[in-house]
Amino acid sequence: MNKQQNILIIGAGLCGSLLALRLGQRGYNVSVYEMRPDLRKVDISAGRSINLAFSDRGNKAMKLVGLEDKVKALCIPMNGRMIHDEHGNTFQSNYSGRDYEYINSISRGDLNTLLLNEAEKHENVNIYFNKKCKSVDFEKTTALFEDYSTKTQFIEDADVIIATDGAGSAMRKSYYLGKKFLFSFSQEYLTHGYKELSILPTENGDYKAYKNALHIWPRGDFMLIALPNLDGSFTVTLFLSYDEGEYNFNNLKTEVKVLEFFQKEFPDALTIMPNLLDDFFENPTSPLGTVKCSPWHYKGNTLLMGDSAHAIVPFYGQGMNASFEDVVEFDTVLDYHKNDWESVFKAYEKTRKKDTDAIADLAIDNFHEMKGHVNQEIFQEKRKLEMALEKEFPDEYSSKYSLVTFNENIGYREAMLKGRAQDKAILNLLTDGVIALDDDLKHTLQKVKQETEAILEDDEIAGLK
Amino acid sequence: MNKQQNILIIGAGLCGSLLALRLGQRGYNVSVYEMRPDLRKVDISAGRSINLAFSDRGNKAMKLVGLEDKVKALCIPMNGRMIHDEHGNTFQSNYSGRDYEYINSISRGDLNTLLLNEAEKHENVNIYFNKKCKSVDFEKTTALFEDYSTKTQFIEDADVIIATDGAGSAMRKSYYLGKKFLFSFSQEYLTHGYKELSILPTENGDYKAYKNALHIWPRGDFMLIALPNLDGSFTVTLFLSYDEGEYNFNNLKTEVKVLEFFQKEFPDALTIMPNLLDDFFENPTSPLGTVKCSPWHYKGNTLLMGDSAHAIVPFYGQGMNASFEDVVEFDTVLDYHKNDWESVFKAYEKTRKKDTDAIADLAIDNFHEMKGHVNQEIFQEKRKLEMALEKEFPDEYSSKYSLVTFNENIGYREAMLKGRAQDKAILNLLTDGVIALDDDLKHTLQKVKQETEAILEDDEIAGLK
Repeated sequence: MNKQQNILIIGAGLCGSLLALRLGQRGYNVSVYEMRPDLRKVDISAGRSINLAFSDRGNKAMKLVGLEDKVKALCIPMNGRMIHDEHGNTFQSNYSGRDYEYINSISRGDLNTLLLNEAEKHENVNIYFNKKCKSVDFEKTTALFEDYSTKTQFIEDADVIIATDGAGSAMRKSYYLGKKFLFSFSQEYLTHGYKELSILPTENGDYKAYKNALHIWPRGDFMLIALPNLDGSFTVTLFLSYDEGEYNFNNLKTEVKVLEFFQKEFPDALTIMPNLLDDFFENPTSPLGTVKCSPWHYKGNTLLMGDSAHAIVPFYGQGMNASFEDVVEFDTVLDYHKNDWESVFKAYEKTRKKDTDAIADLAIDNFHEMKGHVNQEIFQEKRKLEMALEKEFPDEYSSKYSLVTFNENIGYREAMLKGRAQDKAILNLLTDGVIALDDDLKHTLQKVKQETEAILEDDEIAGLK
Repeated sequence: MNKQQNILIIGAGLCGSLLALRLGQRGYNVSVYEMRPDLRKVDISAGRSINLAFSDRGNKAMKLVGLEDKVKALCIPMNGRMIHDEHGNTFQSNYSGRDYEYINSISRGDLNTLLLNEAEKHENVNIYFNKKCKSVDFEKTTALFEDYSTKTQFIEDADVIIATDGAGSAMRKSYYLGKKFLFSFSQEYLTHGYKELSILPTENGDYKAYKNALHIWPRGDFMLIALPNLDGSFTVTLFLSYDEGEYNFNNLKTEVKVLEFFQKEFPDALTIMPNLLDDFFENPTSPLGTVKCSPWHYKGNTLLMGDSAHAIVPFYGQGMNASFEDVVEFDTVLDYHKNDWESVFKAYEKTRKKDTDAIADLAIDNFHEMKGHVNQEIFQEKRKLEMALEKEFPDEYSSKYSLVTFNENIGYREAMLKGRAQDKAILNLLTDGVIALDDDLKHTLQKVKQETEAILEDDEIAGLK
């Protein structure tokens, strides 16, 4: 392809700014149009998650663009879940039996700033803010924008348009409303919404809870989580039903009721959240949705990438990592299909969609695991066993969580199929008494492998995949 | 509820006219607005399937409204699939091992006419044609219509609006675009489309192929099917990819190529389809889509029913049956929740949605079974075994197909879970040599039941449902 081609990117969030950087490195002429003001100049954190989980798939993308070290400086390692019960007792459940495998808490703003700065170092990359995309004419490869400062509208032409404009993508809406091709599309909301709260640092700037963990207060039908920030604070998120259960977002309308709820369910969190009521009534309640669609591209003209193509719920900590992996996959396809954009887009969707569908489903599984299963004895036994297997046989066993989070060289779909079969194998072997926690681990590993293989084989024979 | 309440129904297709009849029987004031002209006066068959499969769930609804006998007169029994191979050889695969279980071919137009006539016998039911619903204000419980004859628009007010306006529902679109509540929604297209063709009667008005079967020409990636009509003709449907494979809808553009395709793949069909080319180039190619959404209702004001709530692909022959079953379920809920419409709608969706989700998924499974699996030896062995089990143990065994089609007293979801587990059990037992076709059937039944139970139990332990 002619490197002097003009690529228009809609959205300068995490995915869009990384894509701009990478395409800039490859020598394309890149213009990025972002709806929001420049986050390096204006504080626009409100309403979006403040910190995120960053792990190996995301890091693979940082290596690709040469930013691994700079990003590492922004990371706070979280080695496992710190689980808080109703009485304030805690226990830690590691993410892996291998010491070198952990996830990280990272600030969305800091990371986005880094990516924007690096992208703008390329003179062939230009980023424009306060320009909201209203619609895309995917047949003409043009996009209509509104300039928020001047209140005027203008049309931009390009050789290729890539939309990284998030879950509410304007281009995806144009695909849907255009009715020019068969567009499969789904938006699925959970019954639960979320609200961000905070645990502020001590007066000395120290953390009020253990720094290197993802804290969870699982309560079956709802939960509270907390991730550390570099300034000593934690960003806390309450996941709760809109209208079911004794306490829900629709009935938590008074200070008395909110305090009563936290006193009863999260007493240890409440003691370090003196600012709870301010946060609770100032911050919005937001929905949790999954978006899938297909096709992502229209001919060789336009392509959806990141959340615009596959928005997922946050429970596997993979939203940003999946979008970063999009850019890595796209970059690989660019190496192999140099003939034309339509082939590139087709090949990219073919290799990528099965994996983003899988992480969407895994993220919903993990919602149920985090809010409930982590409290159940059989799931705790399974996790203990898996930690032991990973520690004892680091090259031979990886749990579903490890396959998804720490094995960036296999796709999400493969991780899901193998991981689910393993989970089923272990839960059934434990229940049937075929294996137990104090058995010889070598024997357990063998049984788990055999049973996992048998499950995958049975599914294949039955035509399930 | 006050029976003098005004219920507005959008759409007088199969579901809408049955609902109007039933609510008329219950004494409500019912007004039905239909976009199309009155099909009793104008021929409007083009573009919609001409005949349909009618089976026990649909018949349960006919019993409810007292029309079982009148509908029976419109039915052509189909006892099984007549499978045609590439050389024109045929073999029949029955739908059940019980002689009294079969499905029926029925004319959409004849059945709709009957339901409209019966509904209009009630003076509290009024049906208006050529009135297209443009949108619904679900907060005010009003609908905006366009009169196709006068080209004027008008608004209708009602106590309750029920939309039975099909897969492209205007009310569902108002739910989606209104953004007044979290509306989960999906439309998923298959890679395949369909085109209707025909086998005309002989000069004497006789059938040119065996009358009492659903004919299938399965070819792996595509297929042809044919259902009989009362006039001696068959309606034939070609299911084919839009753009994949050697032959597809996008490249079948010349008469030579269409003839070549039929000559190669469906030679025996071609000999009785002298009118093939006229049909092929006159009739439209239509997409195959699945629609799911939730919630179906807005408060106690409005409700989606039939295809507007859950459009499915046609491969299980359950689309009409599912919509008729909607009316039966709704009628039952009306008996039990007399207090208010919101409770009725909530209870109806709660009991019904899991079942319509299940039949949507089953219908897609059956697409793959019909076009391909029916040709595979292991699937044929499974069917033979199931026929033998149903014949020998009519009260103890029902295949997935029987559970879905002939067991109207269990829901689709239960039928799916049990049926899939049974399929998996039989396929694995056959593959592993634990059971064989010539084994003692009593022993086989026992093995199948045990293995099915084990599969369901393992899934439950693993948290799968």
